[in-house]
Amino acid sequence: MKNYADLWIGYNKRQQGGDCNRLKKIYINGSSGSDRITENAVHELKNGLKSMLDIDPEMVYGQIGAPIAATCGKEILDSEEYCISLLDDGVSIDAKSGSGVLYAVFDILRNVSCERDINEVYASGKTVRPSNPLRMLNHWDNMDGSIERGYSGESFFYIDNEIVIDDRTKDYARLIASIGINAVVINNVNVKQAASYMITDRYFDKLAELGEIFAGYGIKLFLSLNYASTIEIGGLDSADPLDEKVIAWWKDKMAEVFKKIPTLGGFLVKADSEGRPGPFTYGRTQADGANMLADIVKDYGGIIIWRCFVYNCKQDWRDRKTDRARAGYDNFMPMDGDYHDNVILQIKNGPMDFQIREPVSPLLGGLKKTNQMLEVQIAQEYTGHQIDVCFLIPEFKEILGFKTYCSEKDDTVGDIINGKTLGSRYSGIAAVTNTGNDFNWTGNYLAGANLFGFGRLSFDTELSSEQIAEEFVRMTISQDIDVVKTIVGILLPSREIYERYTSPLGIGWMVQPATHYGCSVDGYEYDRWGTYHRADHLGIGVDRTDKGTGYALLYNEPNASIYNSPEKCPDELVLFFHHLPYTHKLHSGKTVIQHIYDTHFEGYEEAKGLAAKWDTLKGKVDDEIFENVRERFDRQLVNAREWCDQVNSYFFRKSGIPDEKGREIY
Amino acid sequence: MKNYADLWIGYNKRQQGGDCNRLKKIYINGSSGSDRITENAVHELKNGLKSMLDIDPEMVYGQIGAPIAATCGKEILDSEEYCISLLDDGVSIDAKSGSGVLYAVFDILRNVSCERDINEVYASGKTVRPSNPLRMLNHWDNMDGSIERGYSGESFFYIDNEIVIDDRTKDYARLIASIGINAVVINNVNVKQAASYMITDRYFDKLAELGEIFAGYGIKLFLSLNYASTIEIGGLDSADPLDEKVIAWWKDKMAEVFKKIPTLGGFLVKADSEGRPGPFTYGRTQADGANMLADIVKDYGGIIIWRCFVYNCKQDWRDRKTDRARAGYDNFMPMDGDYHDNVILQIKNGPMDFQIREPVSPLLGGLKKTNQMLEVQIAQEYTGHQIDVCFLIPEFKEILGFKTYCSEKDDTVGDIINGKTLGSRYSGIAAVTNTGNDFNWTGNYLAGANLFGFGRLSFDTELSSEQIAEEFVRMTISQDIDVVKTIVGILLPSREIYERYTSPLGIGWMVQPATHYGCSVDGYEYDRWGTYHRADHLGIGVDRTDKGTGYALLYNEPNASIYNSPEKCPDELVLFFHHLPYTHKLHSGKTVIQHIYDTHFEGYEEAKGLAAKWDTLKGKVDDEIFENVRERFDRQLVNAREWCDQVNSYFFRKSGIPDEKGREIY
Repeated sequence: MKNYADLWIGYNKRQQGGDCNRLKKIYINGSSGSDRITENAVHELKNGLKSMLDIDPEMVYGQIGAPIAATCGKEILDSEEYCISLLDDGVSIDAKSGSGVLYAVFDILRNVSCERDINEVYASGKTVRPSNPLRMLNHWDNMDGSIERGYSGESFFYIDNEIVIDDRTKDYARLIASIGINAVVINNVNVKQAASYMITDRYFDKLAELGEIFAGYGIKLFLSLNYASTIEIGGLDSADPLDEKVIAWWKDKMAEVFKKIPTLGGFLVKADSEGRPGPFTYGRTQADGANMLADIVKDYGGIIIWRCFVYNCKQDWRDRKTDRARAGYDNFMPMDGDYHDNVILQIKNGPMDFQIREPVSPLLGGLKKTNQMLEVQIAQEYTGHQIDVCFLIPEFKEILGFKTYCSEKDDTVGDIINGKTLGSRYSGIAAVTNTGNDFNWTGNYLAGANLFGFGRLSFDTELSSEQIAEEFVRMTISQDIDVVKTIVGILLPSREIYERYTSPLGIGWMVQPATHYGCSVDGYEYDRWGTYHRADHLGIGVDRTDKGTGYALLYNEPNASIYNSPEKCPDELVLFFHHLPYTHKLHSGKTVIQHIYDTHFEGYEEAKGLAAKWDTLKGKVDDEIFENVRERFDRQLVNAREWCDQVNSYFFRKSGIPDEKGREIY
Repeated sequence: MKNYADLWIGYNKRQQGGDCNRLKKIYINGSSGSDRITENAVHELKNGLKSMLDIDPEMVYGQIGAPIAATCGKEILDSEEYCISLLDDGVSIDAKSGSGVLYAVFDILRNVSCERDINEVYASGKTVRPSNPLRMLNHWDNMDGSIERGYSGESFFYIDNEIVIDDRTKDYARLIASIGINAVVINNVNVKQAASYMITDRYFDKLAELGEIFAGYGIKLFLSLNYASTIEIGGLDSADPLDEKVIAWWKDKMAEVFKKIPTLGGFLVKADSEGRPGPFTYGRTQADGANMLADIVKDYGGIIIWRCFVYNCKQDWRDRKTDRARAGYDNFMPMDGDYHDNVILQIKNGPMDFQIREPVSPLLGGLKKTNQMLEVQIAQEYTGHQIDVCFLIPEFKEILGFKTYCSEKDDTVGDIINGKTLGSRYSGIAAVTNTGNDFNWTGNYLAGANLFGFGRLSFDTELSSEQIAEEFVRMTISQDIDVVKTIVGILLPSREIYERYTSPLGIGWMVQPATHYGCSVDGYEYDRWGTYHRADHLGIGVDRTDKGTGYALLYNEPNASIYNSPEKCPDELVLFFHHLPYTHKLHSGKTVIQHIYDTHFEGYEEAKGLAAKWDTLKGKVDDEIFENVRERFDRQLVNAREWCDQVNSYFFRKSGIPDEKGREIY
């Protein structure tokens, strides 16, 4: 690497993967080369090929308008679609717009970067349309420069309540465009203080400039919106979505905003959640709130992305009837069909909050007449703070592949969010992102694999975790086959290892309150957040069956029956759905308590194994990368040991049941 | 009250407690009236008598030098001693210095304020010498304005790293002088950032001014010292107390400091504790560090108060041999006799850290050749944050009355710190104080009783908790006998009630980490602070006997044998010293588990009872005071309920033993 902070757009010297002569002439059909995205794409291509292969390609611009893909003969209809094919004297890119050209360019650069033979890769042509319409990153950056749940420094968008535009801004646009991201929300969903003034003159100029930079890479700028803007900056005494004064204020405001920030894609809204204001305050539904805003921004081509993370965060831990897991479903399902066309409901992957293991939200597959986006988190809030290695792509694959039984027998979450199942025009996937102003963007260098992987997966849901991991390593660290194997071997099992040394069997939440790093078995047990394990002397788990909170029945069949039964429920989720005695036998043949002991002892040992693997790379990878990750592993092992010993001690002290294998418990 | 923030120096209108004519003429013997303290005292007296009784006394200054007390005929020798006697045409104050006059004046004002008949009170004369040489308040104020463990606003000494001197400064001096305080440390023992520069030109002028104001009320100014000043502000590379360069630097520095702040009394030092630097870093003893500084400040009449709060704050919770309770003793006892004459060891009342119930530190009574000060805390760090009512004077009385068996059979902690047992010249009592810039100084108005009470008790150890509580109410709230009875009835049992609904049987530490407010039974159980309850399915408590950590044996006999035996150990401390089964029978006849259930249910009910008592005062006390305390009670009851239910649920879930009385446990 020239610079280890360049990640996968570093373009350092590569070996030729076969004959590269064709790359000396690149035909672009469908673009004159004069639009800004194509200009940026061609600049990227020339720069990349020069650096990697010392090739300075001749560019030939051909047919304008929707081209016919040279190889497959199909017309290219989608603006983000592209086709790459081989000509006798060069490589042809067919696309309908600059975005298509851009993604084609990054396709070529990626294959060159991975030292693949382009003559093989593109032998029979390659036509690509992104899997999901919206592929989005959500920044939880505050305007004071802090990042909520940020583990890689401060914000690079804000310093002291001012918007910063510098070299890094464009680098960031390149970085995320290269993996297929086409939308970014640049401020925290918890819109506080200065951020409420994003939609005022105070920030319009900078936002317009930022929007233009992003637009040059096919990325739409979105803002998180303060639902109570009418009160906080508008001087009104209400934020009631049916109040004429409120509607009038928003009409004027949105006219102003879209005029001042012409590239704006729309807004993300967290309302009625964790202390944020919302329509519930006025006895209105979530649909009332979302539709009011959506109708107004529609004239400007804007969309409203409305988060479903609405629950009672002041629950009484004594109350076993209220179930936070039900909240999203109970709050949003009744209005299915009422949300207007340019509203998207953004649904967290699970019903709780980004735990290491949760069932898929029953809204995904429950909602049948509503635009939906899946929200995942690559910021490792509950999964190791970018200290512990936790490659999340296998989890995202599981989620996307989950069968919802929504319409056809095999309809998956992936089918819903890509628009197939419901015929949605607006849908997609968003990740709460993991970047900051750390030199290498993500703190732990290996956390970069989650950013890379999220982008790649959102663009092409069919990619495997292994393919993604391998590409990440090849593009950022090394082409050496042993190095690649070693690092892929660290990444792939890391999520299950993290799960093993932390919270067992889908129960979640045994974390330090506030920070969410490190073990505290009872940390949330007697608190107001609706996050309980209900462990006593005899057993553990939350009864979410028909005899308990009924949550299991919110799923389509056969999921409902599977989850409702302790015998059928998959082991990894069994304590999420059932309160079971420690002596209950799992499918694995182990008792619950022995499973707890075994997975914790083994998980800690496995974490040590990951660190030992990394140690073998000393001298084989860039020293800065080696030391960066090595230092994190030291901390991960301290963390893993605490989890292991605390969880085992807690349950041994509580159950009084000894470990069958007689290992040391405190 | 004219102003409810005036506390006990408000001097509003009082009924005459008998014939007040004698107060029209006040003789002062021993002072010409021209020293600043006497001037301030006389001003206070005139102002107070005018406001309370509309009397404008004539002042007559008599015999200068050490007078003979008119009534008892004894010569007054101590500068803080005074005698008040009745003459035919007036009242006589005999004192050797302005301080004596000052305390006499406040004695008279207090009796008038309580509407006592001065003809009775002083009928046979009253000669008073304060119980303790040093009666000190320790402010944990940081120079940025925050207060560590402060629950009544920000600092009134600092704003934005500057020292503030305003009306409140003098009011504060009056307020604490009136209760007998004669020394104040104005900055946090954790000396950080700007506070390290207290001993430089940056702050000398203001400190000199502040010192003068305090001196006018008989109060010595002390500073907390950064032990690593040689490094942090001196530019040296060491703080080794035996290093000649270090010693030379301190000599120059102290010459400068005492020249610039002539009223300075000396320094308080927290070294080698919780991350603070100290002599251990250089392989030296605590005595080496303290003596080095003491030798240098001796020339200026200065003293070094050295805190004994030294322990390993990075303990492994798995380790059952290391015992934080032992740390103070183990670190300081070996050098008993080595500490120089102007060193005082400041010892927290218990071996841990201001829990609601701890045994008395074994250093008190262990050290036999060392000056000692007792450190208590009126800031309610672990005792309700000045939200929950917790009148601490009964606790302080227990501590002062604790028999150490140090020399004679009945030598108490009080005897050690007043200098009697060891013949100490420097000794006394310090409280970590509870004031801030809240309008009423202490947040909860009733927390003012702890400030008042600490001062009164440090001045006169013989006062009862009831006397102190009654004086506080009469001087600040009301003379109405029912009101007085009601509030005294709230204050007196409040500490035991707090104990009952929080942590049982001396175990402590079941608090929310970091904040120390609210229940978290396992909050410190798996952490590094050496603060564990070791509860498992069968029992609870820490074995500190000869079979455990041996801590119990650090006491003089018969205390050691009593604490070492689960049968002899007092119930309220039994889990501090012993790990016992839940089924162990206490002296009360109850099992440990039933004691836990009973005290928690009862403690919460009793807290409700306190609130109900307060509610009867509506309309009978100042509205502002009523609402201030009422609002705190609301919060106290939420807190008490959480403690009750969480502790009971925790132990029921862990032990599986039901409550005999079948009350609801979750």
